[in-house]
Parts: sequence; structure tokens; C-alpha cells
Amino acid sequence: MLFEKIKSDILAHNSYVIGAGGEMAVIDPRRDCQIYTNLAEHGDMKITKIFETHKNEDYVIGSRDLARPTRAEIFHGARENFEFGTGVREGETFSVGPLELEVLETPGHTMESISLLLRDRSVSDDPLMVFTGDALFAGDVGRTDLAGEDKRREASEMLYASLHEKLLPLPDSVIVCPAHGAGSVCGGNISDREYTTIGFEKATNKLLSLSKEEFVERKVNERLYEPPYFAMMRKLNREGPPLIYNLPHLRAYTAREIRSLLDRKAQVVDIRSPTSFAGGHIPGTLSIWRNGLPLYMGYYLNYEDPIILVDDFNLDLDHAVRHFVRLGYDNIAGYLAGGFAAWFKQGEEIERNGTWSPSDLAEHLDDPSIWVLDVRNVNHREEDGHIEGSHHIYVGELEDHLAKIPEERQIVVHCDAGFKGSLAASILEKHGFRHVTNLLGGTIGWKAANYPLVKEEEKPLSASPAL
Amino acid sequence: MLFEKIKSDILAHNSYVIGAGGEMAVIDPRRDCQIYTNLAEHGDMKITKIFETHKNEDYVIGSRDLARPTRAEIFHGARENFEFGTGVREGETFSVGPLELEVLETPGHTMESISLLLRDRSVSDDPLMVFTGDALFAGDVGRTDLAGEDKRREASEMLYASLHEKLLPLPDSVIVCPAHGAGSVCGGNISDREYTTIGFEKATNKLLSLSKEEFVERKVNERLYEPPYFAMMRKLNREGPPLIYNLPHLRAYTAREIRSLLDRKAQVVDIRSPTSFAGGHIPGTLSIWRNGLPLYMGYYLNYEDPIILVDDFNLDLDHAVRHFVRLGYDNIAGYLAGGFAAWFKQGEEIERNGTWSPSDLAEHLDDPSIWVLDVRNVNHREEDGHIEGSHHIYVGELEDHLAKIPEERQIVVHCDAGFKGSLAASILEKHGFRHVTNLLGGTIGWKAANYPLVKEEEKPLSASPAL
Amino acid sequence: MLFEKIKSDILAHNSYVIGAGGEMAVIDPRRDCQIYTNLAEHGDMKITKIFETHKNEDYVIGSRDLARPTRAEIFHGARENFEFGTGVREGETFSVGPLELEVLETPGHTMESISLLLRDRSVSDDPLMVFTGDALFAGDVGRTDLAGEDKRREASEMLYASLHEKLLPLPDSVIVCPAHGAGSVCGGNISDREYTTIGFEKATNKLLSLSKEEFVERKVNERLYEPPYFAMMRKLNREGPPLIYNLPHLRAYTAREIRSLLDRKAQVVDIRSPTSFAGGHIPGTLSIWRNGLPLYMGYYLNYEDPIILVDDFNLDLDHAVRHFVRLGYDNIAGYLAGGFAAWFKQGEEIERNGTWSPSDLAEHLDDPSIWVLDVRNVNHREEDGHIEGSHHIYVGELEDHLAKIPEERQIVVHCDAGFKGSLAASILEKHGFRHVTNLLGGTIGWKAANYPLVKEEEKPLSASPAL
Amino acid sequence: MLFEKIKSDILAHNSYVIGAGGEMAVIDPRRDCQIYTNLAEHGDMKITKIFETHKNEDYVIGSRDLARPTRAEIFHGARENFEFGTGVREGETFSVGPLELEVLETPGHTMESISLLLRDRSVSDDPLMVFTGDALFAGDVGRTDLAGEDKRREASEMLYASLHEKLLPLPDSVIVCPAHGAGSVCGGNISDREYTTIGFEKATNKLLSLSKEEFVERKVNERLYEPPYFAMMRKLNREGPPLIYNLPHLRAYTAREIRSLLDRKAQVVDIRSPTSFAGGHIPGTLSIWRNGLPLYMGYYLNYEDPIILVDDFNLDLDHAVRHFVRLGYDNIAGYLAGGFAAWFKQGEEIERNGTWSPSDLAEHLDDPSIWVLDVRNVNHREEDGHIEGSHHIYVGELEDHLAKIPEERQIVVHCDAGFKGSLAASILEKHGFRHVTNLLGGTIGWKAANYPLVKEEEKPLSASPAL
Repeated sequence: MLFEKIKSDILAHNSYVIGAGGEMAVIDPRRDCQIYTNLAEHGDMKITKIFETHKNEDYVIGSRDLARPTRAEIFHGARENFEFGTGVREGETFSVGPLELEVLETPGHTMESISLLLRDRSVSDDPLMVFTGDALFAGDVGRTDLAGEDKRREASEMLYASLHEKLLPLPDSVIVCPAHGAGSVCGGNISDREYTTIGFEKATNKLLSLSKEEFVERKVNERLYEPPYFAMMRKLNREGPPLIYNLPHLRAYTAREIRSLLDRKAQVVDIRSPTSFAGGHIPGTLSIWRNGLPLYMGYYLNYEDPIILVDDFNLDLDHAVRHFVRLGYDNIAGYLAGGFAAWFKQGEEIERNGTWSPSDLAEHLDDPSIWVLDVRNVNHREEDGHIEGSHHIYVGELEDHLAKIPEERQIVVHCDAGFKGSLAASILEKHGFRHVTNLLGGTIGWKAANYPLVKEEEKPLSASPAL
Repeated sequence: MLFEKIKSDILAHNSYVIGAGGEMAVIDPRRDCQIYTNLAEHGDMKITKIFETHKNEDYVIGSRDLARPTRAEIFHGARENFEFGTGVREGETFSVGPLELEVLETPGHTMESISLLLRDRSVSDDPLMVFTGDALFAGDVGRTDLAGEDKRREASEMLYASLHEKLLPLPDSVIVCPAHGAGSVCGGNISDREYTTIGFEKATNKLLSLSKEEFVERKVNERLYEPPYFAMMRKLNREGPPLIYNLPHLRAYTAREIRSLLDRKAQVVDIRSPTSFAGGHIPGTLSIWRNGLPLYMGYYLNYEDPIILVDDFNLDLDHAVRHFVRLGYDNIAGYLAGGFAAWFKQGEEIERNGTWSPSDLAEHLDDPSIWVLDVRNVNHREEDGHIEGSHHIYVGELEDHLAKIPEERQIVVHCDAGFKGSLAASILEKHGFRHVTNLLGGTIGWKAANYPLVKEEEKPLSASPAL
Repeated sequence: MLFEKIKSDILAHNSYVIGAGGEMAVIDPRRDCQIYTNLAEHGDMKITKIFETHKNEDYVIGSRDLARPTRAEIFHGARENFEFGTGVREGETFSVGPLELEVLETPGHTMESISLLLRDRSVSDDPLMVFTGDALFAGDVGRTDLAGEDKRREASEMLYASLHEKLLPLPDSVIVCPAHGAGSVCGGNISDREYTTIGFEKATNKLLSLSKEEFVERKVNERLYEPPYFAMMRKLNREGPPLIYNLPHLRAYTAREIRSLLDRKAQVVDIRSPTSFAGGHIPGTLSIWRNGLPLYMGYYLNYEDPIILVDDFNLDLDHAVRHFVRLGYDNIAGYLAGGFAAWFKQGEEIERNGTWSPSDLAEHLDDPSIWVLDVRNVNHREEDGHIEGSHHIYVGELEDHLAKIPEERQIVVHCDAGFKGSLAASILEKHGFRHVTNLLGGTIGWKAANYPLVKEEEKPLSASPAL
Repeated sequence: MLFEKIKSDILAHNSYVIGAGGEMAVIDPRRDCQIYTNLAEHGDMKITKIFETHKNEDYVIGSRDLARPTRAEIFHGARENFEFGTGVREGETFSVGPLELEVLETPGHTMESISLLLRDRSVSDDPLMVFTGDALFAGDVGRTDLAGEDKRREASEMLYASLHEKLLPLPDSVIVCPAHGAGSVCGGNISDREYTTIGFEKATNKLLSLSKEEFVERKVNERLYEPPYFAMMRKLNREGPPLIYNLPHLRAYTAREIRSLLDRKAQVVDIRSPTSFAGGHIPGTLSIWRNGLPLYMGYYLNYEDPIILVDDFNLDLDHAVRHFVRLGYDNIAGYLAGGFAAWFKQGEEIERNGTWSPSDLAEHLDDPSIWVLDVRNVNHREEDGHIEGSHHIYVGELEDHLAKIPEERQIVVHCDAGFKGSLAASILEKHGFRHVTNLLGGTIGWKAANYPLVKEEEKPLSASPAL
């Protein structure tokens, strides 16, 4: 029996491959799906079945892309009106060679969410693994807020039932394979255990020991961010997204071309490091370091205007492009040929922002001319504490709360490490703030340098997700 | 928490990497160990501890190779006199960042075998995984024959105790990580489940439900082959094998050079397919197809004379070389430049053997001039049945039983698919058999073509492992 | 100034890249054209101009594929009615940054053939290089037979004029960059000099020292083979071939699927070695070893029915696919998953052919039951001599001359090495010849084993290209 | 005939491979020499001869590394006392299959410099190519200053004789293959023609049309920089450098380890872009962007203390390491794991420098508090002009002239693009200058933004190479 977990890095999405007897099934495939066909070929297997555990909202599903060359059949929960594939119901079973997948309807995260219980009937009738989609994670459970505030209580109750009536009654020994790992935007607090079991989750996952009332209350009051691109994902994944086949080929833009495109709504994304952005960048561009792309592009990029990347040395751009493809940004268009140096060799204008180390900030903390802006997730601020006197707006909501920031002061932005701080600095600069400094190291560096974080919280400036 | 299973293909050896908090441990590393340092670098971790669950006998351990660049400490069971590393005892614990590994002494396969129980104390005191080395596999348990016939009963009793007193009492939910997967020469019947749990093994592994007496009887009478190279592995792995660092660089030999080396005991291995070997080969060379190398080279190659490879087009020889390195064949020397065509373009002599399809054999099965030789594992012969009238000698023991084969007849060798048959044909040819035919497809093809296998067994011609 | 020669291996097609000052031109691009855009990106250049020296007949041109992402302009000789690009005339010049390309009309091989003379005006008015297309090669000149027998004399006269009036008057120091190297089907006798000059060709190229009459006579009587696919290439390259972008993705076929496709006109090509084919193959399939694909597929494959590859271990199939794409075989469909072993593990029927070493043949040379068939290029047969008593039919014309071969005899086919011999054997088998043997090593091995070749030629059995 | 030019990027070193008839020769191999053995294997050839045209001073030769696996013989000019290989003299010839290499003694650059004249005797007695080492380049000739000021006139006279008596008398059509291309530190003004000929050089190379007196005067007064590492290269290349085999494996250092190594003379090289360095860096480290490594490391790194690299994202470090190996820096030790972010996440101190665009500088040009420092090659300053009021010290000599720089002023450093300016800024900072700004774009950006360069030169502050 072949079993592989395919992790899409940073996005923390898991897809799974199981195979035996020359047949293979893929669960929740991603859109750049050659990895599955390669596994099939390497293992002398045919991909015959593809399962979607739910209508994913954080990436573009790859089912249709994978079905094209393989002619595999696509299955998903029957309670949603998908425009492709076949709906399945509780108790239906599907064979993959000698293996068997049984459908468990596990609504809550979405109405049509299913889990898939794996048995190898040639060995035993005992189940071996369960693919839980976004119902049960290692140390966490799925979000119940995405269908809207009005349906949140109902969704939470459904999820409680799914967990306690469908998943937890399984034998302790069943291995749990969820659709996301730690770092995903699909769960607030997913643990980084690569593998877990029903028994281990029952013993350690705090959400599972709550009473129904406690559970629902907790889920209804949970504060989670919803990147705007989720809406596009839901639409595409219901309709069946446009097919891609290979990664798109990027155009190499000259500095001159980019300057003229800036006026025509091109979305220029600077994927360099925070220090590189601080030392000089094209005015008005967005700073999202290469590893932050899957997590933050969905807050600030639209799906229409061409996206152009700026790097230092244009190394491994293919990897960056892959992130755009996974989130459906087929408007990724190209990059600045020659890197940022091509810009400054044209004698063009350059913007900068300041950088501070923790000790630089500590020295100025009482200075009334500075205004410290914390752009972390509000939960991290509350749990880990904050720098005394700092104000809070989440980086993903910064554009909605600009009026709260005093334009005449020196704005010292910080996150937990220094990368999201650079994104925030780029957004502030774009909106006319002229004196912005990014705290390199963020709260991690601040603590490492032995400065204190405090927990008495002033009221956060951004309304959501604090309810 | 980082967790990776590193599978050495074909050899079916598993090593494991766990890491958290900037620290990483490796369990049972293989000798081509850059994969571990790459993982560490990618994950921003330092490899600080290396564990050997037991004195492996089927490959050269990589502990010392990995300790060199990382300066990690090596640990192994204390009950064997290793010439490197530190011995550990029952109940000792080792931290890897926030993770903890607890030593369970689980003798039986070897005297110093240990298992390692993984906890993440930041989450729970419940154990999450157990690394069982060669004590417990998915669907099987370790061999107890390698210390010699006289110690077999005692070893089997010890293994029973290790299983029933140390491993099976663990919670059902604990994930089991053994040192080998299906196909390994270290277990007779390992299942191809990639992941399993204590609970699932308790429910499905037939060896675990036997009484102590039944278990010991079964183990004492189990028939397993021991490739001759195991002795070298045991010696090296106890002493600490010579360090390698990168894969060796192969010399390109001309046809002329190879012809002259043939007289000087070079070991020429033809890694082409059975049909390619049959259609023409260098006289006197050994046929081991590229994917059979790790399983069969250990029966027929020595550790002194230079090993030279013959391929058709010299594609991906690096992958082949890796197999030699893992088994300690540092005498891998080179390959025939230009492939086998370089040989025949020199006008050299060529040997051939015949090939038959199942229907060809069926047509001649009653012909008294043919003598059908089954070279499969004797267990497969007994379990799956055999071609009526065929004789049996295991391919790994063929050289010891040549006298039983009638030289004047046409020898039709077969295995289960046709690859080991080619190896057998090459050995027969080397010993003067002039009329050898390999059944392409072996018993698999034979059955697929709807010819019968029978189960009334004549006495096998090779003494061991039938006891 | 960037200068790169891009060699398409085996096909022996050369394309050229020149660039300076941020601009790049490509001359005679091949269809898998990412190599050019990679060079441009690496060198921070834009590809602005593409030149076709002539309407190539041996591969699908890549101009349109390359023009799509780069928006470069395509230029070609004006004397042919191309359905894309811009026609250019004698004396027109084109700048590529500081470089200049001047058009020399050099008809003969085709009517619209041009050469391009390169100057770097910033250095000197002296020309540095000339791109001669199929007019002048190292040691040879272009074919003049492709426009048909009736136009051959006129074409030869034109070529003489192009050479003596346009190219040879250039300074001795000018470096000659032709469209083909040794081994190309576009010249009978191209030397394998990677680089040459006008001066060196004047001194050494024997065709250039002939008088006009001698030259034309020689060209008119030259014997060259024309693979049938040339006609398709001419059509496509005039009309503008269909665009490809990336290499096609192959389907993995099971043995069962291939068996059923065999009846439905699939073209199954066995790309294994001659020995592998001889030792066993799918009945009725074509044997073209992987490196022979670009030279021989064009004789035996059509552009409609799906093409399926059979290999031993399916290594590096991408490289094989590239050859199909270059010749416009967009009907390349897939390969046998699991390699040839998948066929024989199904218990299917298998065909074989014999193989002989030179000494095997020598032993039987007087045996009246054998019939030796030489399938080499007739020019090689005449120049190098032949095996006494052998008959000649060129491998590319074998299907047209089957009636000349005695069906009841053992046919011993040979070429110069043993690969084309396997192709011939596969064709004979397909047409019912049951007893075919391939001479491994061919005439090269024969000579290496010190057997004689004779030069008294019997009349070849195949009419063309002997005129 | 195989012919390949192997270009070592940035270093602009050329080595050459020629081969025919199964034999191959390599001329001036580099130290990471697997590329040659790969070519040999791919072409079914044996490397039998290695030639050193001269005792190279800008990189570590690879002859001995290449001779080890190939057992090829090494040849070099006889007029130097090498401790390995065989000395050769004028007129000696060496066969490489059917090819012939004839030795021409062409002293001047060094005393033992040789050129190698290539003939293919099977084609003609006319020579086809000449490998000129450092005697003749495209558009330039070799340096004559490296043996010391006192021998410079004599060396220049010898070079004149070598050129006019040995090389220029060759036929115009001979292709010239020099050991360096444009950008090399081994020639002041090498053209970027990838290929040239004797005839083209005679017509265009201005140094070749000078009289002997003019030529010698020109060479004696030529101003060239000599990186300090040349002395080490000369020593190693005469003695035979230590063998390497594969690229060294880098250690991953934590931020903590690097901080403690800083006090113990580790050489930390920041290979990020100028903006990234400006935005924040480890105090006291050297800024050499990744593509500047081969050209500038030799000025500022010693061969004893461990070298540690700092990057943003640790992409493609192998390529960077290759540069160190080629220049003999076997003390390359490792890199900062996690990139520069690992430093600032430790809360460590950070240094910055300013960056200016051309318009920023133009605005302040008359400000008496700034002091503009031009660190370009003095020849570029004189030929291209300079920014009015700027002072000149070559970046490679900055440490020798620090006293000339006013510490109390804001130092605005500039080069031609902005990269060497960052290196200069890092050196100034290391020596206590607190207020340093790098002009992004340098003179290229300055001109592109339409600001003037002037040519009235003030006396440069650095003594050499202005004589």
C-alpha cells in the first residue's frame, strides 16, 4: 500500500495519496498536480479516483486539473451544488484496489464536508486511517465562521456532532489525516504534529473534552481572520476552476516597462527581504517576502490587474509562481529582469523605510514623536503580550483603519519577526505615510533581547476579528 | 514538530527524523546521509542526536558519516560492544528540543535492540510514536535467526517478552515506526502499510495473538534466507564503518579495458533488463537488473575485486551506485563507457540465453529434454504453488547446488516475474550450462496467461532454509 | 556580445543566439524554445528578432513558438510565400543592439535561402561571422535535390553562384555558422568541425574547388535519402506550424490498454537497445533505439495515429519526447507503464529475433540458407566496402523492396553498428519474415574483429537514391 | 570533432575541450572539473591529455584534480619549474585521436606561456584554431606587469615578439581561443566577442597595429590592478594545488555561533544585494554581492580564517561556494542558517548605511557636509568621466588610503552601478566611518537620470595603478 502526504509548503495544505493493486486515489489534490501523476507513474499505478473532502476556501482545488490527464472520477460531498464531479453520501464505499474508502458525512466547517475512512479489507475490517478534511486537525478543529455570522452557531453544533458521533467513536488506533497542518489560515491553533491518532487527539486536544455548550460557545466567539481571496476560492471551487496545466511562463519586464505599467494598475510585489525593501524599493510597491506570499497575497492582490514580481537576483522564481497558481492568481504576469538593480541603474526614484533593532526602539520608547503599531494577529497579541504603549491593527486589515494612525508621527511598525512589518510599512507608505520604521525581529527579537511584553491590553483599533 | 520517514527504496529500510525547537534527531540513518543535513538546514535545525535501534545487518549504518559534519552524539543499545557512540539503557530519556525520547530495551532480533518512545511533553505525557527498529513491523516481527541456530530459541523468547511486556502495553493510539517496510530481507512477511499503530497491530498482526509457546515455535521454524553480505555488515556496523562523504565517482572503462579486466577477477555486473541480457551480453557476467541490485548483489559480489557496471545507455547510474554504497561496496569502480554497444562494436564475442513466454513453456512442458528450475523464495513456492514438474533451488543458493542440475538438458529457469530468472541464467551460464532459457513473466505471467500452479510439493533441492 | 550555438542533439540542427546592448536575435530556433528565453533572461536581454535562414525541411521551426512570449518579429527570405513573418531581401540590415545583420540572398538549397552577415559596427566594419543556413556547411554544401528532380540542375547552379559570389568572397577570417553539423540528414558529408571559417573552408572543402560544371554535375548525381516526413515539415514550416508551449505530458498505458490499441493502429515504438528488442518484444512493434529516434522515426511513423513508447525502465522519457516534438509528431501519446516487463508479466505473447557476433556470421557466411542484408546508406556501402555476398536495401526504403528478399531463408541484417539493423529486423518481422538475425556490431564490429570488407559492388536492390 | 568552450562565469575564464576518435584533451581546466569528465563520458571519449597554457594567477588550476580520475598526462611550458606535469617546447606536437596540437612558445604574459595550434591532419595541414592562453585576447593582449615592475619592459618586448612572430603570421582564417573573456582581471580591455579569428584581430585589435616601441610603451604604462590573492594562485599553481574532489559541504551556523565567531577572526561575507545590506546587516561584515565574489573576494579575504556567508534566503549557495573553490578558498566554512532574519530574530545589534538615488545626490551635491568617493577602476573614471567634485580611491585599495577620507563628513560612495559601492561602504564602516551613503545606480544611474559626468580629473588619491 502506497501512502504519501503531499504538503504544500507555507500554505500548510495537505493532500494525500493512497494506492494498492495498481490503483491510486488522491484526496484534496492541489492545482500544480504533476506530483500526483509522477507518483502514479513511479508506482505503476493508475489514478482512478479523486476526493474533495470539502469545498476548500484557501486554495484552488486541483481535481479537474488532475482528472484531465488521468480520466479519474471526482467525488465530493453531496450537500453542495458543485458544477462538476459526483456527490457522495454517508456510508458509500469506494474501492482502490484492495483498499476501501468509506464516506462519513462530517458537516460543520462546511455543509458538505466529508471524512473518508480507510480500510484494507485484505488485512482486517478494522479501519486504519481517517481523512478528516477540515473537521478535525491535530490539536484543533475546523473553522465554523466562514458561512457567515448568522450560521455560525448552527455550524458549530453540527461540527460538535460530527466530531463526537462520527470521528471520536473510531478506534483509538486510527491514524488521523487532516487537510491542514500548523500555520494554515484554516485553523487558529493547529499543532505541528505531522501524524496523530484518534486516541492521541482524545487525550490531548482540548476542544474535544468540552461539553457541547462549551464547545459551541468557544467556536462562536473564536476570532479568526478571513482573507478576502477566500470568496474567490469558494466560487471557483464550486464552479470548477479554470484548468492550468503547467506553471505559467513569466515575462521579463524591463525597468522602463514597469515604470509605465505602474500608472496602469499593475500590481508590483516586492518579494525581497525586509532589509532589502527598507534599503531601497520602487515607490508604491507592496512588500511580501517570498515565503509570505501564500499567506498575505490574498489580502492585497486582486484577480484582474497583472502581477509583477521584484526580486534581488531572480533566483528560484518558479517556486514563487507556484504560490500564485495555487491561490488562483492566473494574472501573475512577470518580473523585473535584472532584479531591483535594473531599476536603480535606470536612475529611477527610490523609496526607503527605516529599520530598528530592539535596542533602537527601547531607546526611543518614551519619545512622544513615535507611535508604535503592532500588526500581529490579535490572538498572538493577547496570548504573548505586547510592547507597552503599542497600538494594534492586524496587517490584513490595515487599509481599513488608516484613519486611526497619526500621520505626523514616526510610525514604528512591528510584527513578530519583521516580515509582516515590512508589508505593513509598504502599505503605509503607499497611503502617504512618510516616516515609517520597521522593527527588525519584531516581538521575537524584542524578547530575545530581554525587553518586556505586557499583557494589559488597550482596546484594539481594528474592529474584527474581535467580536 | 518535524517528522519525516526516509525510505531507502528497494532495500525497504526506513530511517526517521524528528525535530522541534531548533533541534533534530535521526534514527537509524543510512550512509548517503546528505538528505538529513538538507532537512536540518531547510528546517533551521541542528542535528544533535543520532540513534541506532540495533546493529543493522542489511546495510551500512550512516551514524558516523552523519556525526562528522554535524558533531551530533551517537547512541545505541548498551548490550553490545560497539567501538563508537554511547550505550543507553532502559528508561533513559533524551530531549530533542521540547520532545523526549525514552529508551525501551527490546532484545530478540539482536541482544542490544532498543525501541524509542516519543513524547511531546509540552502537549501531553501520553506517548505519540514508538520507533521499534527490527522488533515490531507492520504485520510482522523481527528475525530471530541471525545470531545462529543455537541461540534462536532464546532470541525468540526474548522477542516475545519485548513485544508483550514493552510494546503492546503502550496505548492503542501510539504510531509504530519500524526500521523496515515490505520487501526487506529483514522480515519474512512485512506488510506494505506505510503507517500503523499499536492498536491496529494488536488487532491484525497474527504473530501477536499467538501464545508464547506458539510464537517461539513459529519463530524457531521460520525459513528465511541470509545473504552472505550480512556478516560484513555486522562487522562494519559494530566497528564503525569507513566514512564516505559523497558518492564515489565512477571510472568510464572502454570495452578493451573491460576485456582485460575480466581475466583479473573484475566483477562485471550487467544491470540491464532480462531481455537485453538474453539478446546479448559479455560472456561470464552477472545479470542483476538495476532495481534488483540491493536485494541480490549481497549474494554474489565480494568486497575486494573491482565492480564494473554494464548498461544499455548509461542512464542514471548514480542511482545504481547509491545501492552499492549503502551495502558497503566501496569497491564499485566504474562502468562500460558507451554501454553494451561499445562491446559489440569491438567485434567481441557475445553470449545469449533463450527467453520463453508462458505459452512457449506450456507447449513444451511435457518435453523430456527440458528441466524447469524454480529459483523463487521457497516460501513463495509453497504458498503460491508451482509449475508442475518444476524443481526448486533458491536463486541466492544456486552456486551451492549446481550438481543437482542436469547439464545435458535445456534448463528453463523461472522466478515470479523474470528478473531473478535472468540472474539465475547468468550464474548457470558462468558454470558451463550452455542451453538456458528464462521464462519471461515467471509465475506471475504464467498465472496471468491462465496456466495452473500446483501445490503438491516435491522435496526442494536446496537444503536451507527449509529446516 | 553574447553568442551561443544551440545544438539539437542527434538531429544535428544548429540554431544561434546573438545579443548585445540588451537585445537578442535568434537564428533558426527549434520548437522547444525555452532555451532561448532562458538565455535572454539570464543575460538581461529581450529577444526582438527571429530569423529563418530557409524553409527548413528536417524539423519543425520554432519561430512562432518563440515569437509568442517574446513578441519578437520573424524574418525570412522573401522569395517564398510564407504565411507568417516578414520577407527580407539582399542588402537589408537589421540591428541587434550595436550589432548588425546583413541579408545575403543565397538560393540553391531552397529558393528563398538567405545567409546573415554579422558585424559589430562599434568595433569595425569588417564582418565577424556569417550564418549560412543550408548553403555552406563545414566540409560540405547544401542539398539541391529537395525541390524535385526537374529543378535540381537549376538549384545546383544557383547554389554554385551563392557560394562563389556571396560567401567565398568574404574575408578568410569570417567565422562560418551553418544550420547543421555532422550527422544531419541535410547534408551527405558534413564534417564534425564545430567551428570553421571562410578561409578554412576555401582551403579544405573539396566541393568549393570544383569548377561550376564539375560542381553542378556532382550535385545533380549526388545520392541522398529523403525521409518521407520532409514533406510534412515543408508544409508546416511554410504555413506556420501549430504552437506548442511546453512538452506534452505522456499518458501511462497499461499492458492491457496497449494490447487493445495495437489493433486500432497505434504506432508502438520500442526505444530499447537492439539486444533488448532481440531478447523479447511486443509482436509487430517498431525498434528504434532512443538515440535513433530523430533520424528514423520520420521514415516509418505517420502524423495521425497515436504513438506509444516501450522502454525497459522508463528512464528519461522526456528526452525522447523532445525528439518527437521537434519533428512535429504531436501525436506522441504515451508509454507502457512499468516498461516491457509489464507486458510479459501479463503473460502476453513475445517475439524475438536472433543476434550474431561477427564471428558467428563469419562461421556461417558460406551457408546457403542465410541471406545477408546490408541496410546502410548506399554511400557508406560504396565508400567503406561491404561484407562479401551481402545484398543492399537502405533501411529507410525497406518496405518498398520486400519482394526482393527470400522469405524462406534466414535473413541476417546488418548496418554499421547494430542499431539500424534492429530497426530493419523489426520491419521484416512485421511483414512476416520469421527467421531474422541482427549482426551486433555491424560493419564496425566486423572490421574490429578483423574480417574483410570488399568493394566490388553488386547492383543495389533499392532504386533510389542511386540514380 | 568535439569542441566545447567552458566558461567560468564572472571570472571570465575559458577552458577548452577538444576531442575526436575516442580521445579528448582539456586546455586550462578549472578546479571544479566534473564538467570535463561528464563531457568525456557523454561523448564516449577518454581524457588523455591536459594542457596548461601558462601558470594562471587568477584561479586555481584543475589539472591535478582532473588527472586523478582520468589518469591523463599534464603538459605545460618548460620554462618554469613546475612541481608536476611535463614541460613542452616549441614545435612539439601531441595527437588527440586524429587531431594534432602543436606547441608555440609565446612568452610575455609569463615566461613559460605557450599557445597550442590545432590541426585536423585527416582534413588538411592548415591549422584550424589556436589556443592563445593569456597572450592574445579578443581586442586585447595579456598583462605584462605581473612579474614585477623591473621585468615589465622585457616582458612587453617578449609579448610583442610572440604576437608578431608566432600568432599573427598564422592564416587569417584561424580561430582564436583565448583563456579569458570580457570582464576578466587578466586583461584591461578584453572584448566580449565570444569567438574571433587571426584575421579579425589583425583588422580590429588596436594593440596589434602599434609599432614595437609604441606597443612596449603602452604596456609599460598600462594601469592594472593586481588583487592580492594572485600571489597565492601563482604559488599554488606552480607547486600543484591541493586536490579537491567535490564541492565542500557548508556548515549551518546559528546566529549565536556567528556572534561568538566574530570575535575570533571569522570572515563573515554578506552576499546580499546593496539594498539588503543597507537596510540592516551584522556589524563589521563585508558586503560582496553574490556575483561579485570572484572579482572582489581576492582583495579582502585571507586563506586562513573561516569564511561564513550571510544571505537573505540561502538560495543557491552552491553556486557561491563554487566561486570560493575556484580561487582556492578552501577555508569556506559555512553560512548563517535561516539567513539574516536569524540574526535579527535574536534581537542582535544591526548596522545600516544610507542609500541615495541620483536625484538625491544631485540635490546635495553642493552641500559641504558631504564628501563623494568614487571607487571605480581608475581607467573607467578617466574614460567615462566622473561626478564633479568627487574623489577617487579604487575599491580594492580602499584600506590603504583611509587616512585621506574625512571622518567627520557624510561619505557618499559610488561605483558604476551600486554594488562595489556597497563593498566600499562596508569597509568604511568597519574602520569607524559612521555616516556612509551608497549611491544606488552609480555612474550608470547618474547618466541614465541625465546628470553630467566631467572629465577634468583631479589627481587620484590612490597611488597605484596610476604610475
